[in-house]
Amino acid sequence: MNARHDLTANARRPVPDAFLAALAARFAERCSRAQAVREQHGRDESPFEALPPEAVVFCETTADVADAVKLAAQHGVPLIPYGVGSSLEGHLLAVQGGISLDLGRMNQVVRVNAEDLTATVQPGVTRKQLNEAIKHLGLFFPIDPGADASLGGMAATRASGTNAVRYGTMRENVLALEVVTAAGEVIRTGTRARKSSAGYDLTRLFVGSEGTLGVITEVTLKLYPLPEAISAAICHFPSVAAAVDTTIAIIQMGVPIARVELLDANAVRAVNKHDKLGLRETPMLLMEFHGSDAGVAEQATTVQGIAHEHGGEEFEWARTPEERTRLWTARHRAYFAGMAANPGCRTVTTDACVPISRLAEAIGESVREADASGLPYYIVGHVGDGNYHVAYLIDPKSPAQADTAERLNDQLVQRALRLEGTCTGEHGVGLHKQGFLVDETGEATVAMMRTVKRAMDPQNILNPGKIFAL
Amino acid sequence: MNARHDLTANARRPVPDAFLAALAARFAERCSRAQAVREQHGRDESPFEALPPEAVVFCETTADVADAVKLAAQHGVPLIPYGVGSSLEGHLLAVQGGISLDLGRMNQVVRVNAEDLTATVQPGVTRKQLNEAIKHLGLFFPIDPGADASLGGMAATRASGTNAVRYGTMRENVLALEVVTAAGEVIRTGTRARKSSAGYDLTRLFVGSEGTLGVITEVTLKLYPLPEAISAAICHFPSVAAAVDTTIAIIQMGVPIARVELLDANAVRAVNKHDKLGLRETPMLLMEFHGSDAGVAEQATTVQGIAHEHGGEEFEWARTPEERTRLWTARHRAYFAGMAANPGCRTVTTDACVPISRLAEAIGESVREADASGLPYYIVGHVGDGNYHVAYLIDPKSPAQADTAERLNDQLVQRALRLEGTCTGEHGVGLHKQGFLVDETGEATVAMMRTVKRAMDPQNILNPGKIFAL
Repeated sequence: MNARHDLTANARRPVPDAFLAALAARFAERCSRAQAVREQHGRDESPFEALPPEAVVFCETTADVADAVKLAAQHGVPLIPYGVGSSLEGHLLAVQGGISLDLGRMNQVVRVNAEDLTATVQPGVTRKQLNEAIKHLGLFFPIDPGADASLGGMAATRASGTNAVRYGTMRENVLALEVVTAAGEVIRTGTRARKSSAGYDLTRLFVGSEGTLGVITEVTLKLYPLPEAISAAICHFPSVAAAVDTTIAIIQMGVPIARVELLDANAVRAVNKHDKLGLRETPMLLMEFHGSDAGVAEQATTVQGIAHEHGGEEFEWARTPEERTRLWTARHRAYFAGMAANPGCRTVTTDACVPISRLAEAIGESVREADASGLPYYIVGHVGDGNYHVAYLIDPKSPAQADTAERLNDQLVQRALRLEGTCTGEHGVGLHKQGFLVDETGEATVAMMRTVKRAMDPQNILNPGKIFAL
Repeated sequence: MNARHDLTANARRPVPDAFLAALAARFAERCSRAQAVREQHGRDESPFEALPPEAVVFCETTADVADAVKLAAQHGVPLIPYGVGSSLEGHLLAVQGGISLDLGRMNQVVRVNAEDLTATVQPGVTRKQLNEAIKHLGLFFPIDPGADASLGGMAATRASGTNAVRYGTMRENVLALEVVTAAGEVIRTGTRARKSSAGYDLTRLFVGSEGTLGVITEVTLKLYPLPEAISAAICHFPSVAAAVDTTIAIIQMGVPIARVELLDANAVRAVNKHDKLGLRETPMLLMEFHGSDAGVAEQATTVQGIAHEHGGEEFEWARTPEERTRLWTARHRAYFAGMAANPGCRTVTTDACVPISRLAEAIGESVREADASGLPYYIVGHVGDGNYHVAYLIDPKSPAQADTAERLNDQLVQRALRLEGTCTGEHGVGLHKQGFLVDETGEATVAMMRTVKRAMDPQNILNPGKIFAL
């Protein structure tokens, strides 16, 4: 099934004047209908053209959100929660019209309980902001999708990224939520206890629901003590396959590596150019080890041995925090570096994730297909989780290139599904992967998701048209 | 709100003769109406009196389950999935009549993918059976609730136990499920990939749903490499408070301890008597360390230092696997040891879990209240998670003792909730904690759970009357 979303399945729904008037009365200058503001809120980092909402409401409190949702419910108007706009699958497009709820001003770290390793934040707090706020306590929040995303948005898309191989994803690291329901009611799920068997796991039902079941207005997260020792190393390999095989062996041996990122030669070339890193342009793993001094040394020795067996070269160490930051910043900028290397291009990025033993086959075939297509591309991957991104760089004016990229994505996803993986490791379904979701889970499972959606949002006002058509 | 469930809220629903005839025709001798079989399937390890189902169907395949559910749906008859019967909150009582689906014969390890650290099992496979089946591969499945529970049942109650502090609970360790829905349809959730953002997390919605949303017919689990080194140690403390404070410090320092179990002096006395262990009868921590040789030694040194600061004595090491097994077996038998020490008694067990910083207060007050009550009791706890069980031993013929135990449980739970914890860390809600669930989450959150339940099981045939009244 083709991944591309048939936007004609959606129609813009009427936004009554009475609703806009009520919104203006309640929110005054915090309700904007300016074209530029609407445009900005009707797109994300995906290649989709913007589909602007009719208005944008800048919420500052949970009560603001509840009131906006109540008004929307009263008038049957769609609403789309907005964090920083860094999603990648069209999550923010107003495909059925309605309004955008900008939660960026809800950016308070509400509470840090250092002794319990928990923090409660408003949804607009970004991951970097949280980490700044807690580093003096010797704590950190590991989930790192690259972008300085909002924590509400990260919860909504079940984000993960470079540290997930050791610390898990948002699925494992959200303890509790405050959510505004489709009726505008404020509910709480979970507690600050590390575990619970108290009824349905609504917390994890909201995590990854992409704004379609409720608006997240507060997130309670697990924190971690900053490791006694952190060290990062680069290892160059003769081939992508050698780097991948090394990763597979690391995971199968149970090494508690904190980060293990693949960059193919194209990705290294792009970040080299963009960030002037001077790395040799071969496939490489960028790794990080966390633990005690002795533990980190032991992990690194084990991994160096594994890498050596697979033709990996000597580790190059990033010995200072500054060097480490420079490398990770470069890694995180790969997306923009890739675009910068091909001015005017758009990026079509894939997000498959497979069981680790299938990773070599999954990536190897994807490389062959991409090479054969002639499209520029690069590969990065959180390979310790079996998650990899092939980014195809296309000329936005070329429908043929767009078709080629979509065909490659189709092939890549179908292969990942055959290998018992998932169409999306961390980006979510949004608009772009709705067909793939059905391919992955089957119609009956998506039908059950629809059943849950209809029950929790009977008017279909919460980010309608995302994940699946109703 | 009182914890005890008002059984009058439930009425036994009619079980039409036509249904029983159809069941007999489909399942022949695998459908039993024998009194002893019904009695056995109408109770669990809770103090509730048995409420037997009308019939028990012994399922051998997913198709058996699907057919039984379809018949039940056609006739509006309740059904209750049954694993090994080790649940603790009345989950298995046929409060609205209907039938029990015994899944014990669905006990095949379907597939082990050692290279991916995953296994797929039928729901009747027990945790010990799985561990036997994989140990030759150098792998283990860590979740250990004490009882040799079925993995389907453990998923259904979101079980955890002694290893959760390091390896998480069933919430973190179930990758995928096959489930028979209330309509008798077979669906699959999740894949063997370690992470996914593909739509609603139905896997985790079913995990912990106590058989009320679907019947789990297959579970795909994460496995772990057996650690290079495992060592277990006992540390005696002058008081429960000292042991708890030690635990808090261990967790706050981020020591990756694999198990840290509290036994109060009463619990030590009971297991001593039952298992002839010869332990000194003071509060103690029973700990286990997993890792490399050096890593385990480092953890143990750190923890010994912390314990010493809190008045803990020198570690006593269990140096051989046999010694370790003996200690853990004794720990797991505490429940039965407690009962054996008080012949004829029943156990009312609590299951609160609080943020780690609140653990000393939570347990300390509970000890004071239990001492003042005059009831025999003992305390065990997975204290690294903030989870503790006070077990009150009551004479089943004494309504006054039952009332006292319930009052103590009420006080203990309300305190845990004030301390931002949960009424159940791992046992689930069942019949016994329905009032506490409302106290914990609020009416609106339980109302949302009911909304999900009604949508997924519109006839309310799946384990009705559990978690909440509809």
